[in-house]
Amino acid sequence: MRVGNLPGIRRLPIYLNLLRQMRGEGRDTVSAAALAEQAGFVASVVRKDIEMTGAAGTTGIGFNIDILIGDIEAFLGWDNPHDAFLVGAGNLGGALLGHRELAGHGLKFVAAFDADPGKTGRRVHGIEVFPMEKFSDLSRRIRPGVVVLTVPAGHAQEVADLAVAAGIGRIWSFAAEILRVPPHVTVQREDLAAGLAELLVRGKSRPS
Amino acid sequence: MRVGNLPGIRRLPIYLNLLRQMRGEGRDTVSAAALAEQAGFVASVVRKDIEMTGAAGTTGIGFNIDILIGDIEAFLGWDNPHDAFLVGAGNLGGALLGHRELAGHGLKFVAAFDADPGKTGRRVHGIEVFPMEKFSDLSRRIRPGVVVLTVPAGHAQEVADLAVAAGIGRIWSFAAEILRVPPHVTVQREDLAAGLAELLVRGKSRPS
Repeated sequence: MRVGNLPGIRRLPIYLNLLRQMRGEGRDTVSAAALAEQAGFVASVVRKDIEMTGAAGTTGIGFNIDILIGDIEAFLGWDNPHDAFLVGAGNLGGALLGHRELAGHGLKFVAAFDADPGKTGRRVHGIEVFPMEKFSDLSRRIRPGVVVLTVPAGHAQEVADLAVAAGIGRIWSFAAEILRVPPHVTVQREDLAAGLAELLVRGKSRPS
Repeated sequence: MRVGNLPGIRRLPIYLNLLRQMRGEGRDTVSAAALAEQAGFVASVVRKDIEMTGAAGTTGIGFNIDILIGDIEAFLGWDNPHDAFLVGAGNLGGALLGHRELAGHGLKFVAAFDADPGKTGRRVHGIEVFPMEKFSDLSRRIRPGVVVLTVPAGHAQEVADLAVAAGIGRIWSFAAEILRVPPHVTVQREDLAAGLAELLVRGKSRPS
């Protein structure tokens, strides 16, 4: 599959949220222009983003909301969740395990791991926390599609190496480090420090 | 102040991490090329990013690491943390209150708020959780520079409106909604759903 434009992919969840909200209000159809207006983007951008998913509208009517939701969910793989491991069951890791919305976003946590014996052997939001020693063995048995890294600074690369060795193809990392992985592995880095940097610097240019 | 390039601003925390690590290893100076190599970027990008902060190196020697760290921290405003309120003391909100690294990244939580009486009147990682009714009054007394939104879906706009009315100029939002604010207010949206969408779609194009 060819990957479409990444900014467009990142906008799709915004459309999904709005579409689900419209469906909840009893609406059946929506035009790209109306969706764009709600989302705060220009209509041509929304049309192109939707086109990427293969969804088709009807001239003069727009998109059937149910079908459009299904097409976007299928494109994102959210209709078929990936089993996921989480490594690092601290504050942020625990929050992700309990983040109800992620469950509807293609990610299904099946096990968590931690290097701290004080955190293992219990359940966090219903997910069992195993010691790191079990990671490779359980990876090979369960074959998760995704590993989520919420480990303390300085430990992400070693866990990424374990995940790669165990054949896990996607890493969602909340660690500060830049991970080095082979080209067949996909890393998505969520960088809270970067977001905060952007907020504080952008805010400086406004009158306050 | 003119805002430099946003991708560059987002890269600065990566350099800071590496520089602090180098300092920890006892190094005194570093060249842009060596920093680029470590960060996995090209040297010209790193040079331009550093230039934006006003830091100056010496030809043939590079940058003094201590001074460069100070210049980047000053540019990001991390040497002078902003008082911050957090609204939504659930899983993710609690995790942010306890996120030790944010404290060194220009954000100092001073109070939290929640609409759920079951969550108020206690402390989360040392920060008191107040009922929403106290938000406007405490905002006017404490004048926080930043409000962090970790409220459930559908509640972010009303809290943003309260924050704007109370004169808070920066909103760091983890909510799915697109917020509408006046032009003098800066919103930075952290979109976990977007990151996950990108991970899952990018991963589809690799052999698995």
